[in-house]
Amino acid sequence: MEPVRIGILGLGTVGGGTVALLRRNAESLRRRLGRPLEVTRVAVQDPDKPRPADLSGIDLTTDAEGVCTDPDIDIVVELVGGVDNAEPLVRAALGHGKPVVTANKALLAERGNELFRFAGEKGVDLAFEAAVAGGIPIIKALREGLAGNRIQSVHAIANGTANYILSRMRTQGLEFEEALAEAQDLGYAEADPTFDVDGIDAAHKLALVAAVAFGTPINYDALHMEGIRAVTGEDIQFAAEMGYRIKLLAITRPAVDDGVEIRVHPALVPESAMLAGVEGVFNAVEVVGDAVGPTLYYGPGAGAEPTASAVVGDLVDVARTLGAPPEYRVPYLGFHAEGMREPRWAPIEEVETEYYLRLQAKDQPGVLAQVTRILAEEGISIEAIRQKEPLPGEEDVPVVLLTHTTRERAIRKALAAIDRLDVITGPSQMIRLEEVGTG
Amino acid sequence: MEPVRIGILGLGTVGGGTVALLRRNAESLRRRLGRPLEVTRVAVQDPDKPRPADLSGIDLTTDAEGVCTDPDIDIVVELVGGVDNAEPLVRAALGHGKPVVTANKALLAERGNELFRFAGEKGVDLAFEAAVAGGIPIIKALREGLAGNRIQSVHAIANGTANYILSRMRTQGLEFEEALAEAQDLGYAEADPTFDVDGIDAAHKLALVAAVAFGTPINYDALHMEGIRAVTGEDIQFAAEMGYRIKLLAITRPAVDDGVEIRVHPALVPESAMLAGVEGVFNAVEVVGDAVGPTLYYGPGAGAEPTASAVVGDLVDVARTLGAPPEYRVPYLGFHAEGMREPRWAPIEEVETEYYLRLQAKDQPGVLAQVTRILAEEGISIEAIRQKEPLPGEEDVPVVLLTHTTRERAIRKALAAIDRLDVITGPSQMIRLEEVGTG
Repeated sequence: MEPVRIGILGLGTVGGGTVALLRRNAESLRRRLGRPLEVTRVAVQDPDKPRPADLSGIDLTTDAEGVCTDPDIDIVVELVGGVDNAEPLVRAALGHGKPVVTANKALLAERGNELFRFAGEKGVDLAFEAAVAGGIPIIKALREGLAGNRIQSVHAIANGTANYILSRMRTQGLEFEEALAEAQDLGYAEADPTFDVDGIDAAHKLALVAAVAFGTPINYDALHMEGIRAVTGEDIQFAAEMGYRIKLLAITRPAVDDGVEIRVHPALVPESAMLAGVEGVFNAVEVVGDAVGPTLYYGPGAGAEPTASAVVGDLVDVARTLGAPPEYRVPYLGFHAEGMREPRWAPIEEVETEYYLRLQAKDQPGVLAQVTRILAEEGISIEAIRQKEPLPGEEDVPVVLLTHTTRERAIRKALAAIDRLDVITGPSQMIRLEEVGTG
Repeated sequence: MEPVRIGILGLGTVGGGTVALLRRNAESLRRRLGRPLEVTRVAVQDPDKPRPADLSGIDLTTDAEGVCTDPDIDIVVELVGGVDNAEPLVRAALGHGKPVVTANKALLAERGNELFRFAGEKGVDLAFEAAVAGGIPIIKALREGLAGNRIQSVHAIANGTANYILSRMRTQGLEFEEALAEAQDLGYAEADPTFDVDGIDAAHKLALVAAVAFGTPINYDALHMEGIRAVTGEDIQFAAEMGYRIKLLAITRPAVDDGVEIRVHPALVPESAMLAGVEGVFNAVEVVGDAVGPTLYYGPGAGAEPTASAVVGDLVDVARTLGAPPEYRVPYLGFHAEGMREPRWAPIEEVETEYYLRLQAKDQPGVLAQVTRILAEEGISIEAIRQKEPLPGEEDVPVVLLTHTTRERAIRKALAAIDRLDVITGPSQMIRLEEVGTG
């Protein structure tokens, strides 16, 4: 059989891993597909840079657009990253009737709707399993495996760097800046860690997951996002004392009133939950469906070969239906274009969950009376209060509260009032608590 | 658009759940598929039996074969169970050019090769996600999501009843018979529990998983199978003291020398492993791929709606490619017929793993010297030994050993010699120990 000819844009970590994987497992891939998958051209910025991968027989070029328009290329794999530079390349490939496989979550989170529409007009695939949760086939699970369900919630640990930092803060008693520096030394975090620690990367992934879970257009702007910079070692310790761990979660679920919640923020999860046990650079996605109940998908969230695993999985899918009428292929986001609905994206103030509050108070009688009065006025019911001893040399004491389920608007109003109290000496901490469903 | 007309054979737990799910989520399924999925006929044994499901508009019939041959049925869902009664029905449907969706693991484990061949000749799908691990989309993950990988191991908790019994034995300190009786009272175990507790059900599932993981024909007969009847409360307690839990595992992996291992048996797993935390009626499948590394898939392993979730996921897949040329569809077991290979199925004696041994010995000096001499003669290296105190009123003492990785042939030879020692007063227990990869 004729080989399927693949052009790859970008030969960084994932590009190199993809070339290596396609070569190493060429035989088993041919057994699956009935045809060989062959990388024929790779576009790079610097053709003279030494490459770890075996590139024999591959045409190395600096002409990325030429790969996208090459009539001898059947499928284009976009691994250059970025938005403004990747978009014209993806468009060029789609415009020339070539399906595209991409790991580019930023591109799809920000321009996905237009790109999927364009791919639809051209009748070709635009596959993106590698854009979410590395090697975990979560897009396939949500889009196909759980197609019979209405999704009730998704809670994902979707950024390995942030998860590593939180893991080290907990196990080594580090503060955020110390754990970040360690992650940077080990190459787990970038010199500019913004994408990872401020939640942007997890948010890009969540924007895609929400669309696939609920059959909506991608709406990155609707997303509420908080990173992990404000989580302190004290928070992690207090949470642990009460049986919780703090994770950066990407969450989407039907909103309480109507519409869809979509939010990335640190959250307490019960230490008995499976998500609590996901440590270091691993990812996990908990999906609750109305029929299946709670399910969980776990694996490496990044890295050359795990991400290449997702790229090659997509390549097999796409290669199998090369030239097939589009109706035989899975819709990009799992729903037909005419079946997609723009929901009301519920603002964060409407979220109902439990809350961890840490207040900084004067060490004097009556503090709790004032705090609990304010919470009661907002209709907030308290599950637990812990008033700590002041640290040596400190005059203030931390007061930690867990609330029962309450609406975020009420919490915010109460916290504003609490922070105006004379007995409160610093800004209060608020971290949401998620009663996840597995474990 | 014209509805896809579905005929269902059998209206038990899963059949009822499937009808209910297709009705409840009809709107979201139409958004996914672009066409309605409509149950038009259901075959039952007793049409007068009261049914919990809303069957309005459905033609209830006792003529199962008539549903399979009905020209107005597009897809047949086989949920009658059993082998000899289900096979002719599945053949009738396939023979009339109708794709079949089935949850029948026994049928496919025993007759799958012939049925897939026949389906291939007729150019129609035979889908079976619901046959393995209930609602967990593990067949899709192995067959498609991880298609880029060569699979290095699969370790599955694939039978919820056995897992429930082992969970209760551990947490409540019960013996097997007590926990079984409890499971039977709760309806988790059948009056004749053989399928679940002797490993047959897990073995049926494993036979399918191994074929999908390695691109082999299904070979149920090659499988080594041990159930959980011989696991004692003492074993569970001793394992816990050393940091392990005992689970009934379904395992397949490339053999040490050549070929494929395929075995179901109780096994110790480190309590820190994710599989160890899977309790009660839940299932989980750990898959290690050469590219992706360790991944895990978790969810409900049985039940009306979880299994219906898998059936409906298959229905969406099958409906989408109704009438499509077969080359556009995923091969039944993930590999093209001409790409499938009958491997050497490695006999259990060739397995290399670690072992938990519990010996029943006289409480006198020199026992360990004799036992360790025999193990040394077989080249077996010991990781830990615990000689217990005799229980009150007992003269014998349990001696517990953990070995380093060794070949099963050597363990069996050593145990035969140990059991001939005068100081050994009863048959020895041997349980394999699996160093699973996640957590």
